[in-house]
Amino acid sequence: MQNGFIMKGNICYTPGPDNLVIRENAFTVCEDGICRGVFDTIPDRYGGLKVIDCSGMLVIPGLVDLHTHAPQFAFRGSGMDFELLEWLDRVTFPEEMRYADEAYARSAYEIVVARLKQSAVTRVVLFGTIHTSSTLILADLMENSGLISYVGKVNMDRNAPQGLREESASYSAAETRRFVEECISRRYRHTKPIITPRFVISCTDELMRELGRIREEYNLPVQSHLSENPGEVLQVKELETEAAFYGDVYDRAGLFGRGANAVMAHCIYSEPEEVERILENGVWVAHCPESNMNLASGIAPIRRYLEKGIRVGLGTDVAAGTSESMFHAVTDAIKVSKLYWRYVDSDAKPLTFPESFYLATKGGGAFFGKAGSFEDGFDFDAVVLDDRILSFAHPLSVRDRLESAFYQELDQTGIVMKFAAGKQVI
Amino acid sequence: MQNGFIMKGNICYTPGPDNLVIRENAFTVCEDGICRGVFDTIPDRYGGLKVIDCSGMLVIPGLVDLHTHAPQFAFRGSGMDFELLEWLDRVTFPEEMRYADEAYARSAYEIVVARLKQSAVTRVVLFGTIHTSSTLILADLMENSGLISYVGKVNMDRNAPQGLREESASYSAAETRRFVEECISRRYRHTKPIITPRFVISCTDELMRELGRIREEYNLPVQSHLSENPGEVLQVKELETEAAFYGDVYDRAGLFGRGANAVMAHCIYSEPEEVERILENGVWVAHCPESNMNLASGIAPIRRYLEKGIRVGLGTDVAAGTSESMFHAVTDAIKVSKLYWRYVDSDAKPLTFPESFYLATKGGGAFFGKAGSFEDGFDFDAVVLDDRILSFAHPLSVRDRLESAFYQELDQTGIVMKFAAGKQVI
Repeated sequence: MQNGFIMKGNICYTPGPDNLVIRENAFTVCEDGICRGVFDTIPDRYGGLKVIDCSGMLVIPGLVDLHTHAPQFAFRGSGMDFELLEWLDRVTFPEEMRYADEAYARSAYEIVVARLKQSAVTRVVLFGTIHTSSTLILADLMENSGLISYVGKVNMDRNAPQGLREESASYSAAETRRFVEECISRRYRHTKPIITPRFVISCTDELMRELGRIREEYNLPVQSHLSENPGEVLQVKELETEAAFYGDVYDRAGLFGRGANAVMAHCIYSEPEEVERILENGVWVAHCPESNMNLASGIAPIRRYLEKGIRVGLGTDVAAGTSESMFHAVTDAIKVSKLYWRYVDSDAKPLTFPESFYLATKGGGAFFGKAGSFEDGFDFDAVVLDDRILSFAHPLSVRDRLESAFYQELDQTGIVMKFAAGKQVI
Repeated sequence: MQNGFIMKGNICYTPGPDNLVIRENAFTVCEDGICRGVFDTIPDRYGGLKVIDCSGMLVIPGLVDLHTHAPQFAFRGSGMDFELLEWLDRVTFPEEMRYADEAYARSAYEIVVARLKQSAVTRVVLFGTIHTSSTLILADLMENSGLISYVGKVNMDRNAPQGLREESASYSAAETRRFVEECISRRYRHTKPIITPRFVISCTDELMRELGRIREEYNLPVQSHLSENPGEVLQVKELETEAAFYGDVYDRAGLFGRGANAVMAHCIYSEPEEVERILENGVWVAHCPESNMNLASGIAPIRRYLEKGIRVGLGTDVAAGTSESMFHAVTDAIKVSKLYWRYVDSDAKPLTFPESFYLATKGGGAFFGKAGSFEDGFDFDAVVLDDRILSFAHPLSVRDRLESAFYQELDQTGIVMKFAAGKQVI
């Protein structure tokens, strides 16, 4: 008897960005947490597996959120009338300071993890705060949630307010080692540490080098921010006169791909050299369209990145993004690409729904390995949606129902089941 | 004993665009459907009225949707990868043809009205289709809903597909008269007819003149579309060589303000002369930010319109907008204004949350008279929101809770009560 199950439903996934596959009333097989593909009838070899009947419903891969900040959920949706640097000082940093208090951190992170659990997300790359113990609480909660995540203790040793600035590069590095060692000793199955310099502005060169050493020693991935906002880009230029460009600061410290997974949020103002380095080094771009609107940052040239073959996924970037809804991120990515085409570059054709769906599933999923698709050999991540609540006057095609479910954010009210790596989460 | 009630809660409203008033644990009085203002304690003269205790909740004016299409709800959220003219031909017109069938229209409109009833909207300006009888069904359903609306039978006598093109200007005008007369004879209390040429492309000059006569004869308001998309604007220029600009076509027919209420959706590409005419004639602009992104139309210069003193409200514009959520419209208006500032006009500062909240309440409410505020003498429209579902880690200010409720679209899940002109709808 195999360990697994079969799911029946309208199975929708994107093997490629131009290829939205819709298999109506089809079967997908989960065996030992791995997807064995999609079939019109149940293959004999899986005849012994139980069938979860989701007939009529939409079955999609779990969504992958490549960039969000767990501590910022506490004020999400408020304080949106600022740009990045002012927003950090006035809204974000005061909240992040609270996480020095582990009791507060626990109660706040319990809310975050509960919301992620109820969302359409199966995999997420998370920022914590500079506080090692509180970030470990977040990691514990994520591990218990059944979701699959990278969790980062944030590093900041300059240009941060008292109370959110670590006392030295060596202290910050030592705390990072402690965080990584603790994650290892706790033997998490679904939760991994990730090196997390907040951004260049808040990390000295010495700290960056230390983080590069830790990254290499433990073979860890990296997450950070890159070229988000004109004010930020200018400040980086002033701080780092020897760097060829913003991302070069990460690269010189060994924190910018080159065989190791690295994901950089935003990349709106990446100059041509930086774009080339992102491509050469295999860095992922976490495109966070709502955040980029809310902070008036701008629009990342995602069409151009895709044409070049750059790896792109989507992120919600709470609390510059206002919720954990990756459905929102999918449709926002399309919307801003239309404005980019209209106002910035008329040769950059707008993203289509299948393309954006791909970015939020298989695109970002690649950061975790084989995830975000129902192809044979992929981790079995699935979300089942009941869209009857949307009440259409006449039956739509499954293709149209899927698109409408995203635009109407059915992830808020319509998720009836969710699996991450074959384990049921909802 | 007076006819009315008192509501207690955190009362939030905008007497002006820069003036978000937050009255915590305050009382607002409804007397004969009219708001008598907001008070810290119950004035003696209202001592006999019952108190509806919404302590701790957010109490806001009903939202006003200045532009949406009832028949298009049937495919909302799908077919979003097109621009305006292609979208009309491929997605919208085929659906609108179905409304020749009154049984279909009834079942479809029942869904629309139920959704509007459950939404945060208390007042709405609706397009129907060309079909008089079906549009009367919509008007009946709206009247029974308790919501307050203008409902328009659409006029189209050119450049529309067979089945959606009225046979002549005189036929279209006669059907419009029939629609108006029926509305009058049915003695609606909350539902009024509105003259509704679809847009210049689909109406001959003869039809426009006929509609102008009907408008004047019955003293009716007008709704239409204006300067939405470059392709549309170009086609109007080709069709109407004698008009000074797009809106001049409406104006020459007596359908563009000048003492009569007229609301024009979009106004993205209005040239300076058109903008001046909008101002002089007192025409309302219905800003529909999500629609304008979805159809890649662009961004309307709302800051400039507000600076000039032009009347502006917000619209959802289903199905180019994807849902009836006016909370979505409020935050989208802010978001696109930030991109407009970033990419189009760096002197046009982004809309703030209070400004956009104002546009969606008192701004658009003015189209209906005194609506959209809790000031003394305004119609009593109120929505009560329970935001506990948002689960914040520490208490936010009421101001921040309000903003967050909008960004997180609490109108989908958090409405506990709604009143329109003093009558309870939810």
